[in-house]
Amino acid sequence: MIRESAVSITSEANERVKGWKKLASQPRQIRRERLCLAEGLHIAMSARDASYPVNALILRDGEASPEAEALVREITGAARRSGRRPPRLYLLAPAVYESIAPVEKGCGLMMELPLPPEPAADALRGLDALFLDGVQDPGNAGTLIRTAVASGVRVIAASPGTVELWSPKVLRSAMGAHFGAHILENVKASELALRFAGRRIAADARGGRDLYDTKGWESGPVVWLMGAEGPGLSQQALAAAELRLYIPIEPATESLNVAAAAAVCLFEQRRRRRFGADGARRG
Amino acid sequence: MIRESAVSITSEANERVKGWKKLASQPRQIRRERLCLAEGLHIAMSARDASYPVNALILRDGEASPEAEALVREITGAARRSGRRPPRLYLLAPAVYESIAPVEKGCGLMMELPLPPEPAADALRGLDALFLDGVQDPGNAGTLIRTAVASGVRVIAASPGTVELWSPKVLRSAMGAHFGAHILENVKASELALRFAGRRIAADARGGRDLYDTKGWESGPVVWLMGAEGPGLSQQALAAAELRLYIPIEPATESLNVAAAAAVCLFEQRRRRRFGADGARRG
Repeated sequence: MIRESAVSITSEANERVKGWKKLASQPRQIRRERLCLAEGLHIAMSARDASYPVNALILRDGEASPEAEALVREITGAARRSGRRPPRLYLLAPAVYESIAPVEKGCGLMMELPLPPEPAADALRGLDALFLDGVQDPGNAGTLIRTAVASGVRVIAASPGTVELWSPKVLRSAMGAHFGAHILENVKASELALRFAGRRIAADARGGRDLYDTKGWESGPVVWLMGAEGPGLSQQALAAAELRLYIPIEPATESLNVAAAAAVCLFEQRRRRRFGADGARRG
Repeated sequence: MIRESAVSITSEANERVKGWKKLASQPRQIRRERLCLAEGLHIAMSARDASYPVNALILRDGEASPEAEALVREITGAARRSGRRPPRLYLLAPAVYESIAPVEKGCGLMMELPLPPEPAADALRGLDALFLDGVQDPGNAGTLIRTAVASGVRVIAASPGTVELWSPKVLRSAMGAHFGAHILENVKASELALRFAGRRIAADARGGRDLYDTKGWESGPVVWLMGAEGPGLSQQALAAAELRLYIPIEPATESLNVAAAAAVCLFEQRRRRRFGADGARRG
């Protein structure tokens, strides 16, 4: 029934395929079109569970996994039942599919998704946020989004030098956390004070105060500033911070990966808000 | 002076190149030969700082960065000064170098390193440890080693299903943390009780007790069991654990990446040991 209305594509010269190829390889195109491509079973399950609108389902014709086929039916059925327009289904010849797919030998299912509407300037002002300052590795960026949302921090703001957060590899690594996040891109560190009411805290391996030994930073909303691997936070980000905290790692050992550092800071915030810095359970 | 004694290699048919290629691509070869290949400036700096023995320095001839050339001089000089045999220097034609290199367009410097001697069975018995149960992603495995060592946990044990921890990608992602770790491979979950005295705690998103709400687990050494992405801990690993702890993430959000989960657990252990579960500073 679904396959009857599917569109088969066998040529890379197809205009739609050319458009997807741009979404897969050109981050600017994602922002210009406000569309993205997401590959994989897990993110398709997350889109289904979040009832996220799906423009198109793209299957590797004859070589998609049974789970991928089942998800196509479920996402299409759920859209119909809730009165939304069901996604178009495209069956791509395997070579055409692989010319777009962000990972080799994936499950054979991609989705074209609209980016969510940009939130009103003031809607997120009072919330916790995570600011990514020049994080270029897509795996790290995706893990950061996933960790932040799991810790209860749902606003992710990214500097102009950060990887495109709706690019296929970031989507893949975040495992569906995008659907529970508010993602703001192209935000400068100097704008954070205007956009957010929270206390701006730099996680900085090079100095500042001890994360655990410093009291009170978790009261009220916090905007965490996290820097890239290697260079760490930029001068602009450090200048925008009201407080610098470091994680007290073992002396003479390597610094932490930025995603690991974020996990430590954001879950220390979560722990303190549940139990207080003194360990007494709250609420 | 160093270049005068260098060996130039221009053919992939060279026997030494064939050996390195095996080390780069065949995990079994690493264990058989007890040799590994590490690529990149950062790990070379770590080897220099740790005075780790280096068998060979391998440069991309004419296309190595100035930093790589400087490190060759420093590592060679340091070995001479401390009376160790200096590493042999090999200059590989760029195409030959790229045929081995684990990353494209790297800095042009690789090292051949001996694996450290295996520690005596009982030497590590009373220490904290991290057990990796089927972690196959090399980036995650490397980050896990880096995070563990930074948290003060220096023993890393890996199940037979875990990626080879001395493979080039794991070495790269751990950023030199290998040199501060004791790495044990091919360890079964069922052997942990014999090999380690510590309390065996499973980090398990599917159940158990609240990491923060459970008291006392940090007293005495701990052996943390962490599972792979997706499947989580195996039945064998769960059966070997004395306690299961979960990280209380925000309801209805994605689970954490294994490396993020380890960061949360291992630094909660570190925090408690410094301050106590009640928040009072110790020592």
